[in-house]
Amino acid sequence: MALIVQKYGGSSVGDAGRIRNVARRIARTKDEGNQVVVVVSAMGDTTDDLVKLAYQISEHPDRRELDVLLSTGEVVSSTLLTMALHSMGYPAISLTGAQAGIHTDTAYSRARILKVDAKRVAGELEKGNIVIVAGFQGITEQMDVTTLGRGGSDTTAVALAASLGGGECQIFTDVEGVYTADPRLVPGALKLAEIGYEEMLELASYGARVMHSRAVELGELFNIPILVASSLTDSPGTLIHGEVAMEVRNKVRSVAHDFDVAKITIVGVPDHPGIAASIFIPLAEAGISVDTIVQNASIDHITDLTFTVAKSQLEEAMAVIAPIAGSIGARDYVSTAHLGKVSIIGTGMQNTPGFAARMFRALSEAGVNIQLITTSDIRITCIIDEDKVTGAVRALHRAFELEVK
Amino acid sequence: MALIVQKYGGSSVGDAGRIRNVARRIARTKDEGNQVVVVVSAMGDTTDDLVKLAYQISEHPDRRELDVLLSTGEVVSSTLLTMALHSMGYPAISLTGAQAGIHTDTAYSRARILKVDAKRVAGELEKGNIVIVAGFQGITEQMDVTTLGRGGSDTTAVALAASLGGGECQIFTDVEGVYTADPRLVPGALKLAEIGYEEMLELASYGARVMHSRAVELGELFNIPILVASSLTDSPGTLIHGEVAMEVRNKVRSVAHDFDVAKITIVGVPDHPGIAASIFIPLAEAGISVDTIVQNASIDHITDLTFTVAKSQLEEAMAVIAPIAGSIGARDYVSTAHLGKVSIIGTGMQNTPGFAARMFRALSEAGVNIQLITTSDIRITCIIDEDKVTGAVRALHRAFELEVK
Repeated sequence: MALIVQKYGGSSVGDAGRIRNVARRIARTKDEGNQVVVVVSAMGDTTDDLVKLAYQISEHPDRRELDVLLSTGEVVSSTLLTMALHSMGYPAISLTGAQAGIHTDTAYSRARILKVDAKRVAGELEKGNIVIVAGFQGITEQMDVTTLGRGGSDTTAVALAASLGGGECQIFTDVEGVYTADPRLVPGALKLAEIGYEEMLELASYGARVMHSRAVELGELFNIPILVASSLTDSPGTLIHGEVAMEVRNKVRSVAHDFDVAKITIVGVPDHPGIAASIFIPLAEAGISVDTIVQNASIDHITDLTFTVAKSQLEEAMAVIAPIAGSIGARDYVSTAHLGKVSIIGTGMQNTPGFAARMFRALSEAGVNIQLITTSDIRITCIIDEDKVTGAVRALHRAFELEVK
Repeated sequence: MALIVQKYGGSSVGDAGRIRNVARRIARTKDEGNQVVVVVSAMGDTTDDLVKLAYQISEHPDRRELDVLLSTGEVVSSTLLTMALHSMGYPAISLTGAQAGIHTDTAYSRARILKVDAKRVAGELEKGNIVIVAGFQGITEQMDVTTLGRGGSDTTAVALAASLGGGECQIFTDVEGVYTADPRLVPGALKLAEIGYEEMLELASYGARVMHSRAVELGELFNIPILVASSLTDSPGTLIHGEVAMEVRNKVRSVAHDFDVAKITIVGVPDHPGIAASIFIPLAEAGISVDTIVQNASIDHITDLTFTVAKSQLEEAMAVIAPIAGSIGARDYVSTAHLGKVSIIGTGMQNTPGFAARMFRALSEAGVNIQLITTSDIRITCIIDEDKVTGAVRALHRAFELEVK
């Protein structure tokens, strides 16, 4: 009997009708002779509503308390989905993150999974139950509830698949899979039948909101094939796995974008060892994700340091930087909020020259000014003005012939 | 340092403003130099809303799943109340029933507390925290969530007070205390400053909705004084305890009533040993609370058996009775739904004759026909027509001079 771990996002379980729809999909998977574990997110806007409630009470809600509060959303949807399966005659049981053995560190609101003790889940599967696990949450050694932060339920699903000894992980969401670009921006974008872990990681990290990179990383680490598909249709979706057909490797696979970029430049920084650490360690400790970092070549041991953060964290980042800029003897520090980024991604770029040149030419012809550039082995990213992002994505999708299968 | 366990009901924490109000009351208790444990119910109609959601999904929601679902309501309010205390500068922490060590049996939706392991609560008090415990819930040996049924949060509060080694338990609710009769029915009803455990038990069991009898029983068992008072005013409330002043004992203390009574009569039952068991064991197993039971003197070994249940359980009870009536050879079984009951309660009745006579005369003068009578040492109850209940309560309140202090 094969093991399948399915995950359903919040919009897939937004109301009673949708919950019943999801229950029917789960039942079908069970009928096909599989053992089924399902990870479920909170219904619709539940999490946002709970956050609002917390901020009605307190301007700075305690993170431990906020995690306990938010974890209730997934508990609610897991019990309702279980009841829906019961009413269709299927044996099922809901488990909280704690009951499912999702053990995490104590980093409230962005906890990391330390280990999964899947004894209870395995025992319920043995009894013939479909096991419905509340996603996005875990428990510390002290038995305190944590939440896993963005992409948490996807991560729960892959972690459970890994600890139950393999099987396939199916992530059902409101998109039909991974595309050559966001179809809302590029009408001719095509769905990919498969994609490698690394490409998906870059895509996830550089703006594709289909899946969070944490879950993909975990999939790669434990070699768990991850299917991303729609919970509303039966279209086949995209399989993220390790053995992607060789013939598709030698090209750009997808164009990713992100409208949510802000830039901070610290001007006139004395360039000596330890300067970067004195800036970026406090930012990390404040929970601010720094993305691209660029340091200009220094003249007379003075340099400029530029980095990007999410717009929502700009204000907080500037507050962290203010005292540091003074103490390291920087001349000034400035920020820009209205930026975005576009990336081309594909393992083919590793072996073939000329991708960067084609990218820059396409952007130039589209009238897009490039502010910063960063690259990895399989990705080239340009930071550009926010209002140029849509045009840039379309230009790149054309330039790399992604409309053509 | 004294220990005080407070409990706030759902209407006391119905919205953000009320939660802040409750936080201020808790802070005041802390400022007075006490260690404070607070048990909180779900906000306003949360529990009802969750039940509705479950019934949208399933006609017969699984009890285990329903308990997990309902338990989230108290978790939400406990975290919000904790955040409100934080924002006022008070150290506080929320604990779920499981974290607070409320261990129960597996009787979902009406679980009984087996023991309280208050280690974590005591530890958090030691650290100086105000401890906010999600009421109404516990956990089984298998780590499955249970709810305690009606009066659950009151029971949580008294159980915590007992297991933390005493202290006072304060139940804050939307009434100001225990009255000589329901003030909505009897405008001249007076608030009692104190009442004994036994009297309160009878009152709670016979219709006064101020507190559930389970919590009072537990209070008596562990000799925990219980103050019932309003969460909205500073009026002194009613103290339920063991050493009630002797002078108030020699009279009726309160008139209780209940509009929710249905009656079932099994007609022409062969009267032999085991008949009662064969009827009432299946009812108990179906979770149906049987209240008054009356068996007529048998003629030629044939008798009638009459008992009352809550109206909401009448249909279910009739379904249980149908096959039994046949198998025990009863001639028929019939039901009446529109009944109520009135009771007079007071420890003084133990030693003084004439209370029953005065009660029956008062009801007769008020034109109230009595259908059934049951008594305990300190209570006399009459089952009457539902539409006579209000008049009966007023007549009894007058007849026993309860307007006079």
